[in-house]
Amino acid sequence: MATSPIGAGRPKTRGTVLNSIRKARTISRVELAASTGVTAATITQVVRELMDLGLVLEVGRGVSTGGKPPTLLQLNPHARYAVGILFERNICVIVIVDLTGRQVARTSFPGTALLPPEQALSLVASRVDALLDTAGVDRGKVLGVGLATYGPQDREAGVLLTHQPTAEWFGYPVAPRLSEILGQPVLLDNDAAAAAIGEHWLGAVEQDTFGCLYMASGLGGGVVVDGEVYRGVSSNGVEIGHITIDINGELCACGNYGCLANYAEPAAVIGQALEEPSLGRRLGLSPAATDVLPGFARIATAAIAGDPTARALIERSARHLGTAAVTLTSLFDLDLIVLAGPSFATAGPIYRSVIEEEVQRRTFARRAHPVRVVTSVSGSDAAAIGGAVLVLQSEMASLQLDARA
Amino acid sequence: MATSPIGAGRPKTRGTVLNSIRKARTISRVELAASTGVTAATITQVVRELMDLGLVLEVGRGVSTGGKPPTLLQLNPHARYAVGILFERNICVIVIVDLTGRQVARTSFPGTALLPPEQALSLVASRVDALLDTAGVDRGKVLGVGLATYGPQDREAGVLLTHQPTAEWFGYPVAPRLSEILGQPVLLDNDAAAAAIGEHWLGAVEQDTFGCLYMASGLGGGVVVDGEVYRGVSSNGVEIGHITIDINGELCACGNYGCLANYAEPAAVIGQALEEPSLGRRLGLSPAATDVLPGFARIATAAIAGDPTARALIERSARHLGTAAVTLTSLFDLDLIVLAGPSFATAGPIYRSVIEEEVQRRTFARRAHPVRVVTSVSGSDAAAIGGAVLVLQSEMASLQLDARA
Repeated sequence: MATSPIGAGRPKTRGTVLNSIRKARTISRVELAASTGVTAATITQVVRELMDLGLVLEVGRGVSTGGKPPTLLQLNPHARYAVGILFERNICVIVIVDLTGRQVARTSFPGTALLPPEQALSLVASRVDALLDTAGVDRGKVLGVGLATYGPQDREAGVLLTHQPTAEWFGYPVAPRLSEILGQPVLLDNDAAAAAIGEHWLGAVEQDTFGCLYMASGLGGGVVVDGEVYRGVSSNGVEIGHITIDINGELCACGNYGCLANYAEPAAVIGQALEEPSLGRRLGLSPAATDVLPGFARIATAAIAGDPTARALIERSARHLGTAAVTLTSLFDLDLIVLAGPSFATAGPIYRSVIEEEVQRRTFARRAHPVRVVTSVSGSDAAAIGGAVLVLQSEMASLQLDARA
Repeated sequence: MATSPIGAGRPKTRGTVLNSIRKARTISRVELAASTGVTAATITQVVRELMDLGLVLEVGRGVSTGGKPPTLLQLNPHARYAVGILFERNICVIVIVDLTGRQVARTSFPGTALLPPEQALSLVASRVDALLDTAGVDRGKVLGVGLATYGPQDREAGVLLTHQPTAEWFGYPVAPRLSEILGQPVLLDNDAAAAAIGEHWLGAVEQDTFGCLYMASGLGGGVVVDGEVYRGVSSNGVEIGHITIDINGELCACGNYGCLANYAEPAAVIGQALEEPSLGRRLGLSPAATDVLPGFARIATAAIAGDPTARALIERSARHLGTAAVTLTSLFDLDLIVLAGPSFATAGPIYRSVIEEEVQRRTFARRAHPVRVVTSVSGSDAAAIGGAVLVLQSEMASLQLDARA
């Protein structure tokens, strides 16, 4: 490294500089040199290149520390865009974010994963197109699409390795096929991992290491370590919905038994609610409903409104999530858990306080540090925004940003 | 980085070169340049410096690829040494390893952690001194001591944050105090983490990412990611003995309930054996024994010898460890688990096959990759050897190796 000729590390240096500008929001060249460890001469040159590419703007002057007040730089938010999609059986959310990760357009509709794959992806693609039109975003400025969905996945190949929700999806090339239809690169990732990195990138979480519990129709987890998604050997980590919390529990469709999901996720809570006939009737719950989200939202709303039966059910689900959160914090040694996803939208405050109580009381290393639990700033859109952020992060790391300019 | 003057990155380059020589065992300068990405000129200079420090030797010639056959380099194993200690309530193992991590001396004795801290540490220090004398190792060549023990810990301060085994140990400065007595730097770390990194460093595990289940008196876990111990926010991760496997289980002394440890660790298995009066009598088990290791070893020996009652108990313990191993692989996305520590010494083959069966059947991402389970090459000594390896790894990373020359 010490002997690389000047300029040899340029693409990496550009990415580093761009990311430092992003994190600082506004920053001077002198501060950039200090924060990146790159020489002033190289900063001047790299910033000129980034300005020529339209990625960075001069936005006025900072406070003088003696001489001439320094010129401040920031990202040009409109220089590039990314699309993020949360795709699961019961809900689909599409967002467009600008280069800073800020949401500029959004749409959502009921899930499409019960359709045959080809039909589902065509529908999603048409919605992405419509949203880009509505927002007036030039396709040439779109860096790509981040498709956040459940696992297990072959992330490299962009393929799902699960028979959920139907056998047709197993091995179907979701990312390559969507890419083909849209004419944009598509990156496949886990919804919970996406939610976690999105939260961090947007600055809502200051720590560089933390965990995320994600709940939509199913339950997932994500861990961010030193500002990057924890990956493991195949990017199929933190599948917290399918860890055993009850060695005497029943066999799960996943092959494990006593899985958290079967005690705590929306379908399980609806099942428990239906065992309380008066509650089921009062909330109009049906055992036949394929979309569990509306029924679960009604239970959550009743719990927040003070219905004691509904509240007991939500608290029981939260207590079980608390058990899993203790496992997550004791294994990954975390001091912060973020709750994200549509199923925390209504009863988030109950979940937050019950889960925090459990982790503070039961985490093995609680004498080394406390553990906090917070709800996501992006709420129901966390995974979609995170999908778009993964595109931005990946492009900044490899600095492909100029390739499509 | 691109603009650093030549030589500015030297200590780091030295560490990289040294580590590349270690991994390759023998290597030529040309191969070193290729594997490190450092220029040939810098390699020549750094190798000369490392040879002047006595750390690297020329050991003959390799195969010619056209011109003069290249000179091969290797570490000088006798240039430096490190001490590793496994320290827990029922067993203490001390090893001395050379610069390559190879064990050159070893001793073990019953645990000292039931003694008052000052007395226990004096005893350990006297045994370290005696072992260095026996092995004829020059104190000036000892890089330091790696003290591997249970958690939670304040690793930076070298302090235990647990009331186990007695209240006196909570907050006691074990590492600083042992350092004072021995006149050597002492690095505190988790026994299971040490066992994991030791296995990797010695080349017994080729993967750079894998997990370790460690069982002595208690149960612990370690995960290695990209060749380094997974740390989390306070180096108190992977405390797998205290994750809930039974939501209806009893309160554990740790504050959590239904913990794996209470179903699977040696004391729990002895408790279950005592409920089978004929087995307890036959094996001479006593509920009053403070040292659980000999009793557990007798059950393990009986299981291996074919006693069906003993075998059922070991298999039940293994099945519970399998449940936790599934959690570990599903959360960290691992494809390899190493079993290490004294309590796998006898019944290791039973544990290995039962745990492997569980992870292959129940891990969420098993369709993405299989999961294998192997027993450690270092067996009972894994944590002690790992403690010493952590010293070597830390010194190579910071290249303090010349400071004490």
